[in-house]
Amino acid sequence: MLKLKKYAMFALALCALAAVPVMADEVAEVTAADAFAAADNALFTANNVWMMVATFLVFIMHLGFAMVETGLTRAKNSVNILFKNTAIPAIGLLTYALIGFNLMYPGFAEDSAGIFGFAGFGISSPEGAAGLIDYAGGGYAYWTDFLFQGMFAATAATIVSGAVAGRVKLGPFLIFSTIYVGLVYPWVGSWKWGGGWLDGIGFYDFAGSTLVHSVGGWGALAGIILLGPRLGKYVNGKVKAIQGHNMPLLTIGVFLLWLGWFGFNGGSVLSADPGLVSYVLVTTSLAAAAGIIGSMAASWTLQKHPDLTMVLNGCLAGLVGITAGADVLSVPWAVVVGLVCGAVAVVSVMVFDRFKLDDPVGATTVHLVCGILGTLFVALSPEHTIVPQLIGIVSYAVVCFPAAFILFLILKVTVGIRVSKEEEMKGLDLGEHGMEAYHGFQFFTNV
Amino acid sequence: MLKLKKYAMFALALCALAAVPVMADEVAEVTAADAFAAADNALFTANNVWMMVATFLVFIMHLGFAMVETGLTRAKNSVNILFKNTAIPAIGLLTYALIGFNLMYPGFAEDSAGIFGFAGFGISSPEGAAGLIDYAGGGYAYWTDFLFQGMFAATAATIVSGAVAGRVKLGPFLIFSTIYVGLVYPWVGSWKWGGGWLDGIGFYDFAGSTLVHSVGGWGALAGIILLGPRLGKYVNGKVKAIQGHNMPLLTIGVFLLWLGWFGFNGGSVLSADPGLVSYVLVTTSLAAAAGIIGSMAASWTLQKHPDLTMVLNGCLAGLVGITAGADVLSVPWAVVVGLVCGAVAVVSVMVFDRFKLDDPVGATTVHLVCGILGTLFVALSPEHTIVPQLIGIVSYAVVCFPAAFILFLILKVTVGIRVSKEEEMKGLDLGEHGMEAYHGFQFFTNV
Amino acid sequence: MLKLKKYAMFALALCALAAVPVMADEVAEVTAADAFAAADNALFTANNVWMMVATFLVFIMHLGFAMVETGLTRAKNSVNILFKNTAIPAIGLLTYALIGFNLMYPGFAEDSAGIFGFAGFGISSPEGAAGLIDYAGGGYAYWTDFLFQGMFAATAATIVSGAVAGRVKLGPFLIFSTIYVGLVYPWVGSWKWGGGWLDGIGFYDFAGSTLVHSVGGWGALAGIILLGPRLGKYVNGKVKAIQGHNMPLLTIGVFLLWLGWFGFNGGSVLSADPGLVSYVLVTTSLAAAAGIIGSMAASWTLQKHPDLTMVLNGCLAGLVGITAGADVLSVPWAVVVGLVCGAVAVVSVMVFDRFKLDDPVGATTVHLVCGILGTLFVALSPEHTIVPQLIGIVSYAVVCFPAAFILFLILKVTVGIRVSKEEEMKGLDLGEHGMEAYHGFQFFTNV
Repeated sequence: MLKLKKYAMFALALCALAAVPVMADEVAEVTAADAFAAADNALFTANNVWMMVATFLVFIMHLGFAMVETGLTRAKNSVNILFKNTAIPAIGLLTYALIGFNLMYPGFAEDSAGIFGFAGFGISSPEGAAGLIDYAGGGYAYWTDFLFQGMFAATAATIVSGAVAGRVKLGPFLIFSTIYVGLVYPWVGSWKWGGGWLDGIGFYDFAGSTLVHSVGGWGALAGIILLGPRLGKYVNGKVKAIQGHNMPLLTIGVFLLWLGWFGFNGGSVLSADPGLVSYVLVTTSLAAAAGIIGSMAASWTLQKHPDLTMVLNGCLAGLVGITAGADVLSVPWAVVVGLVCGAVAVVSVMVFDRFKLDDPVGATTVHLVCGILGTLFVALSPEHTIVPQLIGIVSYAVVCFPAAFILFLILKVTVGIRVSKEEEMKGLDLGEHGMEAYHGFQFFTNV
Repeated sequence: MLKLKKYAMFALALCALAAVPVMADEVAEVTAADAFAAADNALFTANNVWMMVATFLVFIMHLGFAMVETGLTRAKNSVNILFKNTAIPAIGLLTYALIGFNLMYPGFAEDSAGIFGFAGFGISSPEGAAGLIDYAGGGYAYWTDFLFQGMFAATAATIVSGAVAGRVKLGPFLIFSTIYVGLVYPWVGSWKWGGGWLDGIGFYDFAGSTLVHSVGGWGALAGIILLGPRLGKYVNGKVKAIQGHNMPLLTIGVFLLWLGWFGFNGGSVLSADPGLVSYVLVTTSLAAAAGIIGSMAASWTLQKHPDLTMVLNGCLAGLVGITAGADVLSVPWAVVVGLVCGAVAVVSVMVFDRFKLDDPVGATTVHLVCGILGTLFVALSPEHTIVPQLIGIVSYAVVCFPAAFILFLILKVTVGIRVSKEEEMKGLDLGEHGMEAYHGFQFFTNV
Repeated sequence: MLKLKKYAMFALALCALAAVPVMADEVAEVTAADAFAAADNALFTANNVWMMVATFLVFIMHLGFAMVETGLTRAKNSVNILFKNTAIPAIGLLTYALIGFNLMYPGFAEDSAGIFGFAGFGISSPEGAAGLIDYAGGGYAYWTDFLFQGMFAATAATIVSGAVAGRVKLGPFLIFSTIYVGLVYPWVGSWKWGGGWLDGIGFYDFAGSTLVHSVGGWGALAGIILLGPRLGKYVNGKVKAIQGHNMPLLTIGVFLLWLGWFGFNGGSVLSADPGLVSYVLVTTSLAAAAGIIGSMAASWTLQKHPDLTMVLNGCLAGLVGITAGADVLSVPWAVVVGLVCGAVAVVSVMVFDRFKLDDPVGATTVHLVCGILGTLFVALSPEHTIVPQLIGIVSYAVVCFPAAFILFLILKVTVGIRVSKEEEMKGLDLGEHGMEAYHGFQFFTNV
């Protein structure tokens, strides 16, 4: 039996990948090392298949968000929302390829402060095995890594999109999104997932309750403060609910998001590790289910009828809540996280309305409030404590909210961020896009 | 070369999983046994990836059912249907975690009658390798098993949901669902898939034509008998078709169900066995395709025009039909199963209407009638015979129908199961939920 | 160490698949060859899982097409479109099983001209290992191969469906589809993917810009020429845009198509090769994203507002464009392909309208124009040159367009291919199917 160097084994693994059956014929003797390399390569292939599947699932979340936001708002603004939610993943992927990926994973030097790093423009795989089985402990190939992370990136801007729906100008919003998703999200993401300073102090956020959802949530909060509420939402000190126009679309969106979360959380294991990934899927699902039950109970109690939009948002609340600790929380705690987040979501929507913060889809509730809650819940696990969690939450708050606020503010005082009153009444579909979402149908634009 | 004990090999497999590249460097010599364990672990990982994918596909069937049921009923009852179909998977997963999984897979003792068993409350993976590669012959991890089976469980209640649409009270229906999916489905499921008495006598139901679809179908039948038809369905002895309100949603639903069936049937192989799983996917797809053609022919002939709802239900009929024997029937027989079930579906809907059994979505036709047919078709395969199939069908009938009937009856005489006439006219969306599915759109509630 | 013959190794691999843990106990000594075979089998299993996933993704493209076509046309023709798009995959799969698969992959003899071959009716896997790991270099099993290719087949007819929407008779269209997808598509496909003459001269089309999309596009062009434009589209020499009725459905469709393209292109690697598949996913995604940006820029510039339908079609244009060279083009070129195709799509739609070629969904633009463009872009890669690409494009043109034209012409002069003026005004849903897509909703049929 030979003692093989790592490099030789990977070379063999690559040969095995391309030409195993041929090789088996040609070599005179198959050594144990050959066989081990082949097994290693098979595991790498299975891992990478999983990570590609997870990537697709995260991708489909963009459709989920588009449907949730469209369903929860008015028919006259649907084209605008669909347009934004189509443009955002496009912008997100392209900026992530140009700059974001290397900003988020700069490869911090060991003696750096881990606050800012940049590995250069563009994406290119390390040559040969270094981009393959050698790349991430055999968990996935370089390109899979880029695409999986790239699909995450656009999410932050999408979360903002829903909160500012029905009144934001298209152009300025796209400028905001480009900067927020291209620079802010990957920069602050590097603090933890890129191996930066927050990683060093023991802050834990498994799949992004804080790194993704609260980042989007802070942006959403800044946006709705600067935009102000939709016309007719708060009249004479009273909250007038503006009902969404399409509950089937909303439902499609939430189910697609739950589906996508299997990849969002399950893929965050960064390999196909059977025990760990499947465990994460279970905690994720039970939290989603408990989120439904928790919000159903809260809604039925507080609103006297079971509200479909609350229940569906409760599902998302449970999912956001479990995201930070899906791998470390026990099954019963996962259920508790879901129940609490689901119930809190119902109350939180009311609280935001009390402060006249008009968020048409409840994005701040679902992503910011439950993102923070979920990050705190991590401390319930034996491995983690509350202090690093609080430091993490606060540090994202003090950077992301001001960053988003300043960005929106600059746009507000220069090109303006809010459509005219007339356009808002008529709907952004006709105003911004010159077309209707449901041409030929009769519906009311003033409801 | 060493002769290794099983335990040691699994331990090695686990090491390999976590630290293969490192290990390869560190150990002085890689033995064939090491390599074999690594290969074993790679296969387990690939198997488990497949089973996780299958789980997601079964999950998305819940969205499929929601869309089918919504599309086939009236706009004014959409929120109600969407609510039920959101609550059901939540209830299904949580009850399955609490009790169902261990009721369905109790681990019958060899000398037991195999009629009832219970392995205790809650879910917890066997420690270490016992919950991983050791768990099910390396087909999947414990948590994957739970989640895959859990996704199945809620299906039975969902099938009922469509049949009772448009008139059932929300609260009592959710109570029914909780008990039916939490206790009845897993209990009777244990007879076959849990290794109980029906398994012992040679009854065969590969993926659940009987265990899932007929169980749901019997519940649906009980429900529609006790509820009675919707107002205006049977007037002066004549059937008045109540058209569904959204054919695109129906189509989305059916395609998602077909997609989901790849996991429902393909996952029922319980490993990623390339030859068998891919064969099952082919028979499943050809039966679905033939179901479309069979129902198209029947509908075009009998109804004088090609009816979209019939064709889409024909697709589902073919899928339900092939479910029991997808792994044992030949390709030509799979096509025949699809053609027959597709054509029967068209006729069956008419027959149910003749008996004034009002099933708005044809759930009894698709799931009960074709579930029974599919279970019988298994006898066309060389390995199976008709008698055990008949025994199986009958035993599920004589337990599930009475169980569902009694459950609904108790609810009927206590809290009532049918909404008021006024609420039914106005729609359950306003009545039960205080909201509309398509706010702002003009539509008629009395059509 | 033993020198094993290939056959013995595959036999071992099969054993390993079924009974690894048992075997590990039973055999006295595990040899390196055993371990190698087990690793080989694990890799095969992972590969096959990937190809099954890719198959599902291509399947869901049929729902994507259905939604795009429905969304872009009028409400009164929705049932008809949904019906066609349900029937087409059914017809496609069944004809592919009966004849298409063996027509497309006939196994050309080495001394044949590679123009026509046929391996016989029906599908049946080679016995034993020959249909498994032995079948395609361990990339997938026989049945996976059939289903993956079968899912592709129906696409060509679906592309035609959108172009002829709103005026084509159902029956004749289904006859056309059956022949086009059952005979024409697989026959011409054999020239390249079946190892025929175009493969021999170095023509390259990775995943089907020409073999799938232009084949569908030529059929679409023939159809719209023979059918003529919809009533009211070109009035007094002016183009009157007929707006689609459901933008959320269109958006669902495009996102599902992008999702499906991960399987369409990613699966065309024909194994789970981690580096290559993930690279293809990246070029595919970046081209889609760039297609969105390219069409957004073109639409905003030329139409003075950002048109959602253009942007979504631009996404598809980018995807069609990258399909031929997704594995050989560099990342920057992939972005360029997307930008160009996205922008061209906007202009091309206008050009078709100038020639009074009424294509309600822009199928000729997206699939034909961008299919050709994408095939040419392959020449930008170092490995390929322009001449074989031109020969390929032209040879598909001179066969597919006349074939489709003659087919439609025969149908036109015999049974007729266009519905009556009255039916067209009323809508094909009532005319062909006797039902409405949105029963109960108020909408205008004359817009």
